[in-house]
Amino acid sequence: MPDTPGAPVALDAMGGDHAPGEVVAGAVQAVREHGVPVVLVGAPRPIHEALARHGAAAEIPIVRAEETLAMDEGALASLRRPRSSIAVACHLVRRGDAAAVVSAGSTAGIVATGKLRLKGQPGVLRPAIAVALPTLPRPTVLLDAGANAEVKPEMFAQFAHLGAAYAETAFRVAEPRIGLLTIGSEPGKGNKLVKRAHELLSAAPGLRFAGNIEGHDLLTGVVDVVVTDGFTGNVALKTMEGSVRYAFSELRGTIQESRTARLGGLLQRKRIQELRRRLDPEAYGGAVLLGLNGTVVIAHGASRASGISAACVLAAELAAQGVVSRIGERLGPAHRQHRLW
Amino acid sequence: MPDTPGAPVALDAMGGDHAPGEVVAGAVQAVREHGVPVVLVGAPRPIHEALARHGAAAEIPIVRAEETLAMDEGALASLRRPRSSIAVACHLVRRGDAAAVVSAGSTAGIVATGKLRLKGQPGVLRPAIAVALPTLPRPTVLLDAGANAEVKPEMFAQFAHLGAAYAETAFRVAEPRIGLLTIGSEPGKGNKLVKRAHELLSAAPGLRFAGNIEGHDLLTGVVDVVVTDGFTGNVALKTMEGSVRYAFSELRGTIQESRTARLGGLLQRKRIQELRRRLDPEAYGGAVLLGLNGTVVIAHGASRASGISAACVLAAELAAQGVVSRIGERLGPAHRQHRLW
Repeated sequence: MPDTPGAPVALDAMGGDHAPGEVVAGAVQAVREHGVPVVLVGAPRPIHEALARHGAAAEIPIVRAEETLAMDEGALASLRRPRSSIAVACHLVRRGDAAAVVSAGSTAGIVATGKLRLKGQPGVLRPAIAVALPTLPRPTVLLDAGANAEVKPEMFAQFAHLGAAYAETAFRVAEPRIGLLTIGSEPGKGNKLVKRAHELLSAAPGLRFAGNIEGHDLLTGVVDVVVTDGFTGNVALKTMEGSVRYAFSELRGTIQESRTARLGGLLQRKRIQELRRRLDPEAYGGAVLLGLNGTVVIAHGASRASGISAACVLAAELAAQGVVSRIGERLGPAHRQHRLW
Repeated sequence: MPDTPGAPVALDAMGGDHAPGEVVAGAVQAVREHGVPVVLVGAPRPIHEALARHGAAAEIPIVRAEETLAMDEGALASLRRPRSSIAVACHLVRRGDAAAVVSAGSTAGIVATGKLRLKGQPGVLRPAIAVALPTLPRPTVLLDAGANAEVKPEMFAQFAHLGAAYAETAFRVAEPRIGLLTIGSEPGKGNKLVKRAHELLSAAPGLRFAGNIEGHDLLTGVVDVVVTDGFTGNVALKTMEGSVRYAFSELRGTIQESRTARLGGLLQRKRIQELRRRLDPEAYGGAVLLGLNGTVVIAHGASRASGISAACVLAAELAAQGVVSRIGERLGPAHRQHRLW
């Protein structure tokens, strides 16, 4: 039961640096401000106490999970802890009792648990992590952002389909343009992996392949979906975050240096804060693990209530728009005969 | 004759989007404002005309080169054109008539010509491109930024030595700290290539290996040298440039949006321009091709006079401080027996 629109979002109350307090606060925000139904999964007592502080104990149901994946636990923990909050949240989706999973826990733990409990969709070689970059007029989907450090050229076309399904459902993009991240705009540029991926993408039916893009194109909106391996994608994503943070902090230094500039700075501070918020990955609801039999949104580990709430909104939207079904249409058995790989 | 301090910088007058006009203007600036001796290499007539416009025909010598590598010509052109301006500039360094080469031509053409005409230093497996990132209190050296899209784990320790020699000579860093760019701070994180590189770097004598760093650490100055393969390094570098540009352009939009903010914006415009200049890769003189029998500085293709001048200053400084000899001390035959690889 991959897409179950209308069913609540299963929110892992125990994952994240500020769990369960901020996670519960985010659930309350999602329910009250965005009308997104949520069920909280984890240790009932602390969740109930946190809900009570918001006067929301009657509004949001709790599903018990005996165990918790620690933030520093990796992939193996998902096997050792079949009753972890994230595993139970996945189980709710499998049973059709939840539309999607949201967790701010460790990415490695979420990916491993998601793969184990929800399984990959038929026809999907490897699930991938997609993030939405804050381009205009609409976000650019970048994947894989870290699920697969080691890839084969065949996977790039799969990533392209996963990302295209995301862009179609979350951002209503018709025929998303696909770009391949490499180190030169001509077809022959890059390493062996990327050169072969270019050939396969060029020949793949059902994809609007727009060719190579470079690092400086990531935030210009020149394509709708950027495909890359999980190592390069993760480095690029974190480099982007660090660079934007650096530019703002340098700018703050500049503003504080002179008195005239400081005056200007006071007038602008509020607008700059607004801009920072817009560029904040949290505002976009986090990363999405695509290719499983159910939608899984990975919120930033440091998420506060607003980040958790945005992740719930994204998860509900993806489920409502049927991203899992869309991926099935693109990669599932009915369409496999048309593919070259 | 690898380091020839005091000898002039051989400047490829024909390389770059604005050659020879801006290149000649840069040469004049380097000579007059920074006291760096320069010899211009290329087609004598246009160079002479450009010099005459600055009244500098008597100040800067010209060495004739019959051919020019076009910006879109790649590695093979270096074989086809033994008398290209960049090849002749390399020849001057080989003969000891120049201290270093500067070119704003195509990176692929410069790398190929440099390898062919200057040859790799003894003990160097692969020359690499290093860039200086604008961190404080001193720049961070990132390499390889694009010379080697395909690498083996053994090359990372070599890149570390090349980068360390750069940091020691250009920025006077004693015992530079080396970081390995990957996708998690723990030793086991990354792809197979990087995991093996981590082991080799940990065991390599003569290197102060500080462990893994991530994309968001590139601009924090947490290490002095960042090593990575040429594919990842080039993606990261261009992502950084694009992200900083994006942050500033978003900021400009924000400033122009409101009237109060616009007032502040006017007061600040000048300081922001200063900051942009500081973050501009041109201000740092460009990338350096390390590991050849001679220093080669690759200026940005779009360089104007100031960028060319900064590249000449950097090239002269590296030659004066003996970066080639320093690399020889770190990687040459006398030291090879101490290495594990």
